[in-house]
Amino acid sequence: MNVSGLRPLAEKLFADVRALSFDGVGVTRESYGRGESAAADYLRQFAVAEGLSVKADKAANVVFRLPGAPSDAPVAWTGSHIDSVPQGGNFDGLAGVVAGLLCLIGQKRESHRPKLPLEVIAFRGEESAWFGKAYVGSGALFGQVSEADLELRQRGTGETMAECMRKAGADVEAIRAQRILFDKARVRAYIELHIEQGPVMIARQLPLAVVSGIRGNVRHNHIVCHGDAQHSGVVPRWLRRDAMFAVADLIMRIDEHWRVLLERGTDLVVTAGIVNTDAAEHSISRIPGRVSFSLEARSKSNDTLEAFYQLMRAECAAIGRERGVTFEFDRRLLSDPATMDDRICTLLSKACAEQKTPFEVIPSGAGHDASLFANAGIPSGMLFVRNQNGSHNPHEAMEIDDFMLGVQAMGNAFDQLA
Amino acid sequence: MNVSGLRPLAEKLFADVRALSFDGVGVTRESYGRGESAAADYLRQFAVAEGLSVKADKAANVVFRLPGAPSDAPVAWTGSHIDSVPQGGNFDGLAGVVAGLLCLIGQKRESHRPKLPLEVIAFRGEESAWFGKAYVGSGALFGQVSEADLELRQRGTGETMAECMRKAGADVEAIRAQRILFDKARVRAYIELHIEQGPVMIARQLPLAVVSGIRGNVRHNHIVCHGDAQHSGVVPRWLRRDAMFAVADLIMRIDEHWRVLLERGTDLVVTAGIVNTDAAEHSISRIPGRVSFSLEARSKSNDTLEAFYQLMRAECAAIGRERGVTFEFDRRLLSDPATMDDRICTLLSKACAEQKTPFEVIPSGAGHDASLFANAGIPSGMLFVRNQNGSHNPHEAMEIDDFMLGVQAMGNAFDQLA
Repeated sequence: MNVSGLRPLAEKLFADVRALSFDGVGVTRESYGRGESAAADYLRQFAVAEGLSVKADKAANVVFRLPGAPSDAPVAWTGSHIDSVPQGGNFDGLAGVVAGLLCLIGQKRESHRPKLPLEVIAFRGEESAWFGKAYVGSGALFGQVSEADLELRQRGTGETMAECMRKAGADVEAIRAQRILFDKARVRAYIELHIEQGPVMIARQLPLAVVSGIRGNVRHNHIVCHGDAQHSGVVPRWLRRDAMFAVADLIMRIDEHWRVLLERGTDLVVTAGIVNTDAAEHSISRIPGRVSFSLEARSKSNDTLEAFYQLMRAECAAIGRERGVTFEFDRRLLSDPATMDDRICTLLSKACAEQKTPFEVIPSGAGHDASLFANAGIPSGMLFVRNQNGSHNPHEAMEIDDFMLGVQAMGNAFDQLA
Repeated sequence: MNVSGLRPLAEKLFADVRALSFDGVGVTRESYGRGESAAADYLRQFAVAEGLSVKADKAANVVFRLPGAPSDAPVAWTGSHIDSVPQGGNFDGLAGVVAGLLCLIGQKRESHRPKLPLEVIAFRGEESAWFGKAYVGSGALFGQVSEADLELRQRGTGETMAECMRKAGADVEAIRAQRILFDKARVRAYIELHIEQGPVMIARQLPLAVVSGIRGNVRHNHIVCHGDAQHSGVVPRWLRRDAMFAVADLIMRIDEHWRVLLERGTDLVVTAGIVNTDAAEHSISRIPGRVSFSLEARSKSNDTLEAFYQLMRAECAAIGRERGVTFEFDRRLLSDPATMDDRICTLLSKACAEQKTPFEVIPSGAGHDASLFANAGIPSGMLFVRNQNGSHNPHEAMEIDDFMLGVQAMGNAFDQLA
């Protein structure tokens, strides 16, 4: 199968989905919300027009297959997610779905039938930006979306995850029961194509990379530091209970632990992505009495995540004593690190080598739906496509030439699966 | 003149103004906005019903005097402001206006005429919470509200100060010309009663205090730290340009300079009252690319303010180099420290002593309209009334007994002015 003739189709798909989710700055495709559903509807109509078979699963993810393919035989899955962060880029997630569709369409047009039939899945709710939880669409399939998760609220609308999922057509009761919602034994492999979200491939001039493993993370979406809101002019330093100075202190202590942990050779990144004084009461002339913030650590090692987390909690206790504040934590969320399947990594590497595309095997700093498949025992792999300007911002820039090399390599790897 | 019979009137005034500006948590009286104008209208109607003469000045401040008093003879002024911070307390500002009105009503009812007639002024726009600039109503009288100030925008509605002032009835063109808008020579003294906003008088069990001087301040309402918004999982520590870590670093460096300056015996408090990652683009899984914050330092010494300010700017430059961020500053705002008039302090102290009210002479950490009068060469004084739970919060708590002691002492001090 040769996908090079499908390049105009890829360009059209990216342009059309971008147009329907453009927000004036980047793209906004809310998890189980407006932009994501618009993308899902568009892809469904497109696929039907191409003669593919389309159905939604119980988590409202969209599954594409060749018409007439049996729905109970062993298959290989490919796909990625169709949501985006607010003001995000067009390729993060969407590239993997388009890649899968191109493989299916290539197979259909050439009447090419690999030994293991291919199904493409467009996941919803991968980005944690909207509900503070990642991998909702894939997690629901694995029974990993809990009652408490379903009560998380969308950052913009305030609706619960359950409400949003129901509106998108998901079976919320089945999800709530935390059963596995697909025939796991049937899925013999999962391969996801995704843009690289870091700077490595640009620096090393690699159009493609095979992913060895995926960082896990530990998170709190919403920590509140409580101090004492007072007039800024009248309370001396030693009597203040300034929630903002306390949070700044915490971040700097974390920064120091991070530096030391890196010097010991561990893998770790730490981010406080959202930090806010309380808009209802803050003012230039008031000591902040309440600061809310998110905190996230990512590592390839669960031990590192746990060690870092305990250091962070100990620092909060120390700052509480020293600065007269308290820290209130919401539920701790954990995503396990994942290791990709050796055989699939080898198949992807061979496919890259055979088409003479420069590639390397690298780890993924970002999380992906593929980690859930890998940790559920399904042989999984990922192919990264070179991308400029990072990700989770409107400036991400993937070359279509690189993308088509990735689609071809992935399509060839599927041909080797049995 | 004895004001003790006016206590029920004081209670009614505080209760009525609180009711018309209650926001569900505290009181909200927006500078040159809804709550403040409602308070002004209420007080105007009340005063007219009491037979007082009322007019607005060119800055829409409300001036009260006895009927038939000449408008060009020398006078003593008293008053304070009628706006509040968001979710603020009822007494901050309002107490001084009510105290003045009680003195006027006491004089009227007893046909008591002090040598220097009394006028009461209810200032607008004292709180910096709304436009990021304090003393707008009194400052306009002194020609200290500039073209740039008039373009400042209200934090909630986004309207410019000029628009809000015009709606409230101010003569914006006269203010813009920065002329002195009142007959300065006529005002022989300015005395302001205000609740204490710090913890000193509660701790020392003092119902009243005479203010020796007022801290000045240096401020930026809006500093933006620009970094690089990237996916939180993929950029290693040494390549990050995290605007939030940079701001936390700045706050901690400031905290250390503050500590050292205090050890050298200087007077200083520092506050970052508003700190926000950018709501349009922030997310748990994104390195903050943009953090905005306010910064304020207060001191009795202009030299300390300047020294601190230069240290702060030097740290911003250093952090910029070390963390790959830039700091963008809005206009620097400066309010000079002020010293109260010795003779007026003595009169207020004598009045307290003669009525056997425990008092001390203390400095004011918070700024007040009185500082503008003092720095313009008008002999000025302030009387603090004990108040629990600080200020700029809904929990401030002044006892009416203490307040009536203050009104009596101030009224007696006015009787000694000539």
